[in-house]
This record gives sequence, structure tokens and C-alpha cells, in this order.
Amino acid sequence: MKFQLVGFTIGILLATMGIAELIPAFIDWQNGHHNATVFFECSFVSLFFGGALILSNSAYKRVLDMRQAFLLTTLSWFAMSLIASFPLYLSDLDIDFTDAFFESLSGITTTGSTVLSGLDNMSHGILLWRSMIQWIGGIGIVAFAIIFLPFLRIGGMQLFQTESSDRSEKVMPRSRFLIISLLQVYCLLAILCAATYYLLGMSWFDALNHALTTIPTGGYSTHDASFGYFDSAPLQLAGALFMFLGGVPFVLYIKLLFQGKSTFFEDDQFKVFLGMMVAFTSLLTLWLWLNTDYSVGNSFRYAVFNIISVVTTTGFATTDYTLWGPFPIAFLFFLTYLGACAGSTTGGLKVMRITIVAKTVKKQLNTLLHPHGIFTVRYQGKPVEQSITIAVLSFLGLYVTSNVVLTILLSWTGLDFATAISGAATAIANVGPGIGNVIGPAGNFASLPDTAKWLLCAGMLIGRLEIMTVIVLFRHQFWYY
Amino acid sequence: MKFQLVGFTIGILLATMGIAELIPAFIDWQNGHHNATVFFECSFVSLFFGGALILSNSAYKRVLDMRQAFLLTTLSWFAMSLIASFPLYLSDLDIDFTDAFFESLSGITTTGSTVLSGLDNMSHGILLWRSMIQWIGGIGIVAFAIIFLPFLRIGGMQLFQTESSDRSEKVMPRSRFLIISLLQVYCLLAILCAATYYLLGMSWFDALNHALTTIPTGGYSTHDASFGYFDSAPLQLAGALFMFLGGVPFVLYIKLLFQGKSTFFEDDQFKVFLGMMVAFTSLLTLWLWLNTDYSVGNSFRYAVFNIISVVTTTGFATTDYTLWGPFPIAFLFFLTYLGACAGSTTGGLKVMRITIVAKTVKKQLNTLLHPHGIFTVRYQGKPVEQSITIAVLSFLGLYVTSNVVLTILLSWTGLDFATAISGAATAIANVGPGIGNVIGPAGNFASLPDTAKWLLCAGMLIGRLEIMTVIVLFRHQFWYY
Repeated sequence: MKFQLVGFTIGILLATMGIAELIPAFIDWQNGHHNATVFFECSFVSLFFGGALILSNSAYKRVLDMRQAFLLTTLSWFAMSLIASFPLYLSDLDIDFTDAFFESLSGITTTGSTVLSGLDNMSHGILLWRSMIQWIGGIGIVAFAIIFLPFLRIGGMQLFQTESSDRSEKVMPRSRFLIISLLQVYCLLAILCAATYYLLGMSWFDALNHALTTIPTGGYSTHDASFGYFDSAPLQLAGALFMFLGGVPFVLYIKLLFQGKSTFFEDDQFKVFLGMMVAFTSLLTLWLWLNTDYSVGNSFRYAVFNIISVVTTTGFATTDYTLWGPFPIAFLFFLTYLGACAGSTTGGLKVMRITIVAKTVKKQLNTLLHPHGIFTVRYQGKPVEQSITIAVLSFLGLYVTSNVVLTILLSWTGLDFATAISGAATAIANVGPGIGNVIGPAGNFASLPDTAKWLLCAGMLIGRLEIMTVIVLFRHQFWYY
Repeated sequence: MKFQLVGFTIGILLATMGIAELIPAFIDWQNGHHNATVFFECSFVSLFFGGALILSNSAYKRVLDMRQAFLLTTLSWFAMSLIASFPLYLSDLDIDFTDAFFESLSGITTTGSTVLSGLDNMSHGILLWRSMIQWIGGIGIVAFAIIFLPFLRIGGMQLFQTESSDRSEKVMPRSRFLIISLLQVYCLLAILCAATYYLLGMSWFDALNHALTTIPTGGYSTHDASFGYFDSAPLQLAGALFMFLGGVPFVLYIKLLFQGKSTFFEDDQFKVFLGMMVAFTSLLTLWLWLNTDYSVGNSFRYAVFNIISVVTTTGFATTDYTLWGPFPIAFLFFLTYLGACAGSTTGGLKVMRITIVAKTVKKQLNTLLHPHGIFTVRYQGKPVEQSITIAVLSFLGLYVTSNVVLTILLSWTGLDFATAISGAATAIANVGPGIGNVIGPAGNFASLPDTAKWLLCAGMLIGRLEIMTVIVLFRHQFWYY
């Protein structure tokens, strides 16, 4: 009886996916493409299983406790990836199940690592489906981050508990207002993005697809050359802008639109994120200007796009930056770990945690000189409790450990050092491309061994769900209590 | 007047170095090698400057406050490296000052990265001098770790404050007993090590030199092939054993010898360190046995030697393990960061910190499931204060940050990704070799650009002195208060 609400919710998600599959089905049917049948069939299967789960679990208790919330989160992402992989597996792509699941999970987690090539000639249904699953995964993670994480207290996210939050152990659905306004903001940003892309020269199909993968900072493209296909400075700058907007905490938009308050420059995360982007872009622009043939303007354009693409964990590429030289490789490699703001669609460590780690280290240095002084770490002007500091720093420890373990496992499957370490980083931070010849910005994950693909899937999933959410399921105490 | 004790102490150190230089001078004079003159001259210069500092600062106050302790530490290591580099610079090695200083600092910090080749034909004075500076740097760091660090409270080292520690802000010299017994233990271990090496087949000169660099986990050898020159299983196993002994907290030896108490298996660090070595060696032995032509015995021999060499931050090599394949490269690369026990001669993160980070993460996972439960992190059976947990975790944050920044700076000088990231790691953890074609176990630091060498010097110094000790000097508050 305990897990009925979990089953019910997953039923809802599967049914939603089933309805969503009707859109690519319709597109391919209009174009006379035989993938239409596959989408219709998959839609039927999704609706069938979703409906069955809904009906068999409808007598659920209306409260979700901690344990159920943890289980629901991991199961939801897994179930959505599984159901979304079927059309890819059964279509004319002719890929095996490992590849289909990898592509699907990479989409749902808004990672954007792909095993597919020949995108330019693919059926529009498949291309749209890839974009749509990133879109769905994006709204999913923001809802998870805003509504669930503060209750689950993962890695210091209790910082974002508001006064209206229920601090008890029961995770109650927050007011519908938050979900509905979130959805409106999310759609509005995508419409703005698609319109901008279209006005700046993309076809309506490209504009739609890239908008659907820009706002959730996903990174799937409709072209093998990714965003580099559009050799237009205005388009690339617009891309950088909308990726940036996807990395901003979505509550700031909600406050702006529904309460009329612009609180961007009162938000510690937004300010640090903006400052980081300015600093990193300046540094890379300078390096490019000094070390390549690019003009200052082009140096800036390449720098700003690729920096924002990596830090917001989108993973669009305009060029193979690993050909520029050692500095951009090392620089963009480390930026892979960062991520943008907590409460956005981005993955990675996140600006909130980086800020708290930096402030804690600074406090430690002050304490060294004044052992009896009292120094406080502040966030948004308020003192941060020691327990939150420890939670944030523990997350850093676990984040580093996950990366190390995944890199070592990937290298056991035979991947070279650069591929293994950047593959782990790009999976856990949900970025997309790594470095090296195989999975670099110009590369593709298709040639990796199957074991490596499954390991990367595990990395994308635990990274997307803030690691602890997944790991806690493997603890003995979770199941026996 | 404030810094007179600092000047006086550095005077003592320089004078000691001057006396020490008489030993290689004597050796080269006996062998009729013209480097003898260089050593005599440098000895005179060291004694002159040392004496001048002693005389001009002899009216010192007998208490050392925090600030002076920080300044003294960094200045000592810098001054010793500088004075030790003169014989290398002026000898027949024909190297420029950058190389001489790099070699000297790499010795004093017991890193063991070398820019020299042709060791097998070098004057015995030079070879012995390289070994001696590692020996001196080794005893220096243990004394620093046991006597200074608990007072300076760097990265949670206040855990090692004993009841007899003076908890006031004045750093009083601990009882002479500790320093003298430490020196005795250190010499005893080296004598045992040298005797073992000699009995197992090394020449007396090789046995002496390798003993002088094994116990301080330094890693300089008298042969270009490093420890691999001695193709003897018993010798390599003896090397592994004594490197391991160099990674054990030295207070455990003092308790054993002077209080007759064997407390090894009551010490959390020792137990975890031993467990890690067994686990890591088993894993690498298994991989080698499965993936190479080595027998089980040889797999074990290569695994145990190279694992212990890297984790104790010694850096001896018996073979170029980067030729084995991707797994050993990634595995040994990450082991570079770890380090063995705090209170030994090893660098890196250290077992104490790894243990506390692991226990804190575990506690966080428990807290997720039981938000109102009370979970305590324990070390040596005692609860660890939250402030110490935060100090340890902050150290981890700073350690990661230092590595990232140094890697990026190294890549700016043009080093490829593997060389930059492993160069930073091996410098900050004071290990010795990195990975890649240039600075791998079979490589050499000579070909790096000068800027990269100076950056690595900075890395070795801040790594050796637990990062914060050095960084605090660059804070405005250190100088104006």
C-alpha cells in the first residue's frame, strides 16, 4: 500500500509521455514518413501502461513521505527514459537498445550527449522527439529543484526553504500556483527563444527544436554540426543569451512576472553567475585574441557562446574548441563541473554551492589569523547554519568522489584518460560533450563500448538527481527501518 | 623587533645546511671530483649568511605568535630551497638557475620531480646532496606537522592537539623530548632501511641514498631508471615496505620505542591507510593479472610497489606504468591526490581528512532519511566538533581549487591536458611523476617551459605546507592588523 502514490504519479508521467508522442507521430504522418507508425504504437503502449498504473494505484494516500519522495524521483526519471527510448529503438534509426536508452536518458536528463549522427537527414518526428524529451526533462528538474529538493535537504538545498515551506517530514505538494506559474514562465521563455531564432534566420523547425533544447539547457541539435551549423553572429549571441536565461533561478522569473518584482540583482546566485560569465568570457576572449587569428569580435563570440554553453551545462558547440590549444581544453574541462544556478535547469555543482564553499574557505583563513574571532558565512544576507555548510561541503565531497569512481570504472572499460575523465564529468554534470578525439565537441558517443554507455547512463542519472537522492536508495536503512 | 625569532631560526637552518654541505664536499674531495670546491664554497656562504642572521637576531623574544609561525614556516622552506640550490647551480651539471631551484625545492618538499638525467654518471657529491635535502625536508615536515600544525589549526589538524598541547595562541616549543625522540626514530628507520637495501644487494652508496629518500617519501634516486634499476623482487618489496613505514604517523613509532606501547591498531589513520593499501593493491594486481602477461607474483610486486610509491607520495618508479593501459593510468592518477597519514612525511590530502570526509558524507546520508536523528562523526572514538569537520571539508575545497587553478595556469603555458592536470596534482601532493609522455614515470621535467617550472615550484611549496599556511600570507589582514 505504501508505494501507491509513487505508482500513481509514474502512471501520470507515462500517460503524459504517451500523449506527447502523438506530436512527432503527427509530424511524421504529415511528412509521409513511416516512423509515424512507430510513434503511434509507442504512444499506445505508453498510454496503456500509464493508464494501468493510474488505475491500479488510484486508492493512494495523499501524503508523500521522505522515502516515497526519494524513490519516486529516481523511478520517474528512469521510467520516463525507458518509455522515451522505445520510439528511438523501433524507428528507422537502426540502433540497438543500449544506444536508444543512452540517447533517451541523455535527453531526459538534459545532458545532450548523443550517439546519433546524420541528424541533418533524420525524420522530423525523431528530431522533434529528441527535443521534446529535453523539454520535458527540463521542466521536470526545475519542479524537482524548487518543490522537492528543499524538503529532501540534498546538499544544502534547505537554504531554499521559504517561510511557506512545510518543514515537517511529510512532503506536501506546494501550492499549485508555483507549478502553474513555473510552467507559464518555462513556455514563455521557449516562445521568446523560438521567435528570436526564427527572426534571426533559422527555419521554423530549427527554431522550434533549438528553443526546446536551449531553455532546458539540453543541447540536442537538429544538425551534426550543432549550433555551428548556423554561421551567424546574431544567432550565436542569441543562443548564448537564452542559454544564460536557462541557467537563472526560475523563481526570479516567477517573482518578476507574477509579483512584478525584479529581484535579479538581490539574488546572490544571479550576481555570482553573471560575474563568473563576464570573468570567464573575458579571460577566454583574451586568450583567443592573443593566440589565434580571430578578431576581437570573433574571439568574444566564440568565447561567450562556448563558456555559457558549458557552464549552463547545455553543450551546444559552435566549433571544436579542443583544436584551439591546451588552455581552452583545460579551462572548458574544469568549467564542465560547475553548473549554473540551483533552481534552474542546469546540472553540475551549482553557483549556490560554489559560493558557500568559497565563503567557508575564506572564513577558515580568517579563523587561522584570529582563532577566537567569530566569523559567519552569509548567504542572501542571512547567516548560514553550520549544518547547511556541512551539507554543501559534503555534497562537494560526494561530487568529487562520484567523478573519480566513474572515471576509474570508465577507464577499466578501456577508455583513454581524457575520454574517461571528461566523460564522467560531462555525464555527472549533464553537460554533453567531453574532451579528446572521441567524445569532444566534434565527436560522438556512438563508438564507446556498451559497458561505458551504461556507466555513463548511471552517471547522468545520479548527476541529474543531485547524487544523494539516488545513493540513498542503495542504503540498507532505506529499505529496512 | 617582531620578526627576530623568525630571522634567528632561519639562521640556524641555513647554518645547518652549511654544515650538511661539508658531507658531499668531503665525498667529492675524496673521489677527486672538482665539485668538491663548489660544495666547500657553498658551505662557506651558507654558514656566513646563517651566522649573520643568528648574530643579528640573537636578542629575540622567546615566544612565537601565530603570525610569526606562519611566516617562519614559508620562509624556512623557501630559504632552505634557495641555499640548497646553489651547489646544483654552480656544479658541473651545467643547468640554469630555474632548473637548480626546481630540483632543490622538489628535494626539500620531498616531491622528487627531477629535471636531471644522466644520474648514473653524476658526481657522488651531487647525488648524495639530492638525497640529503630530501632527508632534511622530511624531518622538517614531520616536526612541522607534529609540533606546529595542531596550533595553526590548518585543515582540521587541531584534531591532533594532545592534552599536553598548549592551547593558547602562543606557539611554545613542545617538550624537547618530542623533537629528540622524533629524530631518533627517523634515523633508526633510515638505518634499518639502508641496512636492508645493502643486505638485499644494493651497493653501500645506493643503499644509503635510497634510504635517505625512502623514509622521507621523497623519491630521488641515483639512477635514471629509478628503483627499476634494481630488478630484484626482494629489493622492490623492501622498498614498498619502507615507503609504507614512511607514511605512518611518526608518533606511533615514538610511543612504541619510548613508551613501549604498540598503538598501531588503535590508530584510525593507520588502520584506514593499511586497509586502503590492501584494497588498492588487490585491485591493481587483479587488473594486471587479467590484462597483461605478468604472473600473479609479478602483478602483485608491480602493483604493491607503485601503489605505495604513489599514495605515500614517494614517486619511485619500477616501470613505466602508463604503458600498461588506461585503467592503471586513471587509477594511479587519482591516487596521486590522496597521500598517506597526517603526521608522517607524506603530502597530499591525507588519510585523516579522507576518513573525516567519508564519515561526514555517510552522516549526511543518514540525516536525509532521519532529519531529526542525531548522528555524530567520530574519530579515534571521540566525537568530532562541527568546526573541525568544516575545517577539514574546507581544506578539501581549497585543495581541489588549488589543483584546478594550477592546471589552468600550466595549460596557459602550453602544456597538454594530461601533463598540466597531472603536473599540478603531482606538485601539490608532492608525489613526483605525473602521467603523459613528458612527465610520466619514465619522463623528466627538464623540457617544460621555465614559467611552468616556477608554477610547479609554487605548487610544491603550497602543497607541502598544507596550502593555507602559505595563502594566509597573501591576505591583507596578515600584514595590517
